Amino acid sequence: DDPQNTPIPAFGSQCLSCHGEDGRPELADVPIIAGQQPIYLANALRHYKSGERTGGQALVMQEMVKNLSDEQIVALSQWFGAQQ
Amino acid sequence: DDPQNTPIPAFGSQCLSCHGEDGRPELADVPIIAGQQPIYLANALRHYKSGERTGGQALVMQEMVKNLSDEQIVALSQWFGAQQ
Repeated sequence: DDPQNTPIPAFGSQCLSCHGEDGRPELADVPIIAGQQPIYLANALRHYKSGERTGGQALVMQEMVKNLSDEQIVALSQWFGAQQ
Repeated sequence: DDPQNTPIPAFGSQCLSCHGEDGRPELADVPIIAGQQPIYLANALRHYKSGERTGGQALVMQEMVKNLSDEQIVALSQWFGAQQ
């Protein structure tokens, strides 16, 4: 199915509150992740999960991803990457 | 002058090798920064400069920004933010 026209997977619904319904945030200091490179997104989420990535909203992000499996991380990265 | 049609400031030329001529990288694990939120970009660069941001290519980024003034950081953030 085409990620661009399917809703975000349920395990990613918490992302939308900060990153915006389609990955375009209202908050100016939150990155746009719509259309971002999926591999970059997946690496960022993995590094938040492992604690390797700090700075900015790292503590918030660590909470968001700590229970995600790597498959879920990849699925979310592909979903946001496919949004325009 | 309109950042979208002016070349990147000289002090930002080193960014293009990884982030691409217009902020769209060829490398899959390097983030697209064209059209990214300027405030997010400036904060990211400040956190690389201060060492607060780690993970991913943080060590490379720290080298890139260590000699940039805050004004230059803001100028580059606005330039990339204005690219489509």
